[in-house]
Amino acid sequence: MKKHILVIPGDGIGPEVTTWGKAVLEQIATNFNHEFTFDEALMGHAAIEATGNPLPDETLEKARKSDAILFGAVGHALYDNDPSLKVRPEQGLLKIRKELGLYANLRPILLFDELLNASSIKAHILKGTDILFFRELTGDVYFGEKKRSEDRHTASDLMIYNKYEVERIAHKAYEAALQRGRKLCSVDKANVLESSRLWRETVQEIAKLYPEVETQHMFVDNAAMQLIKDPKQFDVVLTANLFGDILTDEASQIAGSMGMLASASVGDGTGFFEPIHGSAHDIAGKNLANPLASILSVALMLEISFGLKEEAELIISTIDRVLKEGFRTGDIADDTISPYKVLGTEEMGKLVLK
Amino acid sequence: MKKHILVIPGDGIGPEVTTWGKAVLEQIATNFNHEFTFDEALMGHAAIEATGNPLPDETLEKARKSDAILFGAVGHALYDNDPSLKVRPEQGLLKIRKELGLYANLRPILLFDELLNASSIKAHILKGTDILFFRELTGDVYFGEKKRSEDRHTASDLMIYNKYEVERIAHKAYEAALQRGRKLCSVDKANVLESSRLWRETVQEIAKLYPEVETQHMFVDNAAMQLIKDPKQFDVVLTANLFGDILTDEASQIAGSMGMLASASVGDGTGFFEPIHGSAHDIAGKNLANPLASILSVALMLEISFGLKEEAELIISTIDRVLKEGFRTGDIADDTISPYKVLGTEEMGKLVLK
Ligand SMILES: CC(C)[C@H](C(=O)O)[C@@H](O)C(=O)O
Ligand SMILES: CC(C)[C@H](C(=O)O)[C@@H](O)C(=O)O
Repeated sequence: MKKHILVIPGDGIGPEVTTWGKAVLEQIATNFNHEFTFDEALMGHAAIEATGNPLPDETLEKARKSDAILFGAVGHALYDNDPSLKVRPEQGLLKIRKELGLYANLRPILLFDELLNASSIKAHILKGTDILFFRELTGDVYFGEKKRSEDRHTASDLMIYNKYEVERIAHKAYEAALQRGRKLCSVDKANVLESSRLWRETVQEIAKLYPEVETQHMFVDNAAMQLIKDPKQFDVVLTANLFGDILTDEASQIAGSMGMLASASVGDGTGFFEPIHGSAHDIAGKNLANPLASILSVALMLEISFGLKEEAELIISTIDRVLKEGFRTGDIADDTISPYKVLGTEEMGKLVLK
Repeated sequence: MKKHILVIPGDGIGPEVTTWGKAVLEQIATNFNHEFTFDEALMGHAAIEATGNPLPDETLEKARKSDAILFGAVGHALYDNDPSLKVRPEQGLLKIRKELGLYANLRPILLFDELLNASSIKAHILKGTDILFFRELTGDVYFGEKKRSEDRHTASDLMIYNKYEVERIAHKAYEAALQRGRKLCSVDKANVLESSRLWRETVQEIAKLYPEVETQHMFVDNAAMQLIKDPKQFDVVLTANLFGDILTDEASQIAGSMGMLASASVGDGTGFFEPIHGSAHDIAGKNLANPLASILSVALMLEISFGLKEEAELIISTIDRVLKEGFRTGDIADDTISPYKVLGTEEMGKLVLK
């Protein structure tokens, strides 16, 4: 199979982790006789430094022409410490999601048995958990109009949804539920928000088209609680952009670490694959980042964008083996792991490649 | 001391749990020679059924005239299942918060040692956790303009903050931090939201007035993760209305159960005390609810509104003793508790009274 892949390393630990994602793609190409070609492009703080623009036109053009995108992370302390800066790294990420029509962000909470003890949650609560989040990605308060009064004393963001935005991602989530545990939990705050009431009404309508799937509606505050109390109760979770952002980061603790979770953004255009972790500038360049989320993003790319299931499974079973042999990065190490088996980014990347 | 207290039982398990909160107030009055008088008023579904209005004028009037309010919960499955209903129980709660100017919602995550094992989080992660949330309560997307297009296909809520709204709660949170661990973590989503950028700028300004307090800013997605990963890192957490709603429900899992967490809403007017749990209509009337959150709300009332520290401490130490003796309601029972020590609402209420 011939595919052209754009790598967007971004900021912070982005370059470190995508290096290993890309290396795994190359290894897969060799093993399975595929022809993967690569290009690279700038986004975020890296792009602002080079061009003044968090998403240069050139990056967008390359993105449109590629068959899939492997992305790292964006963000930088500079902007976090100065909220008044107008041009910001995250604008690049939000714009590419919008421009490519990537309205559905799939975040599987993949639990490796070996990591049951790496979590702060008790192993018996976690065991058997298998959740697939569908986070809406191109609407909500992320993209509604932002305003600042002239005296700068009032600021607002519009939380807004259109029915068709809810419908299209709901269909995707229900289709996935049919292939899995046939349960779908839609999360909203319909007891307070009008946009959530539209969300709930719409999901109620779509639910009728999928009678084989058991539908549940849950308020977001309750969902944040239930995820920790009893994560096994969930199968597919469908939610809006902001709630999905919060709940999936929280759910990373089920998998033991943020460093283990990959995501796939799909919709109208080229698929976009990224770890759910951020740029983590505090540990950037220190060979501390866990490259597994980026490598697992590659597995999602192979399966979802290229339909290469066997290749994706090889990656997951390889990671499983590496973990079974007791190797860990710092974020997923626990007391039972001997110190010499705690690896840096590079060593973990190389081990998976082998 | 002479005080007049308004009890608003509300819906679902509200009446069951406030019964015991009130009984404890009466017992405290007897023990300490105070004169507490009581009145009762309607809110939520109960009020809609009786008057058509989720917050009848009479309730508001009684609230204004009382020295403190003990509230249960509002909400009903009827409205949760039909998002198109115009008059809703939660409107009563939101309106009374606004009308009484209750802009600061204090939610202490009080951890009883005996309940370390009731949580789904590992005991060694929890041990020593002591967090006080300051949730802004009268602004944000809760109160911004709500719109629905004529074809009903577009819906929006305005997420909006004014600088003074952030300032007044920030001052309260910093004052509290000075009396505690001198650490404050402000939670926002300033990398995406303009309202969060105003929030962060304002907190940065106020922080300068409290140099003894160590200030940290954290994105809400990261905070949702860190709360589970390492709850001990937090002292005072300051956040907006919506984020506070989500994070405090999540944090209830630190305390073992939602049934253990009380909250105090304060600001310009009469203090308002309530469990953080909701109306839980699925278990209402079954003698299953945990009355301790309502009883702990009473402890907060005694301390915060009436300055009765000794009385408040007696309540907390009594609950501690009851738990040490092995008594639990269902929500906080674990495998190590013998079945006959698992009590209903009423039995637990009576035990605390004794
Ligand atoms: C970096 C930020 C804009 C982004 C988001 O909030 O969507 C990130 O947290 C994510 O979840 O991908
Ligand atoms: C019932 C609901 C309106 C309320 C809220 O969202 O504020 C509740 O969840 C709470 O936290 O007090």
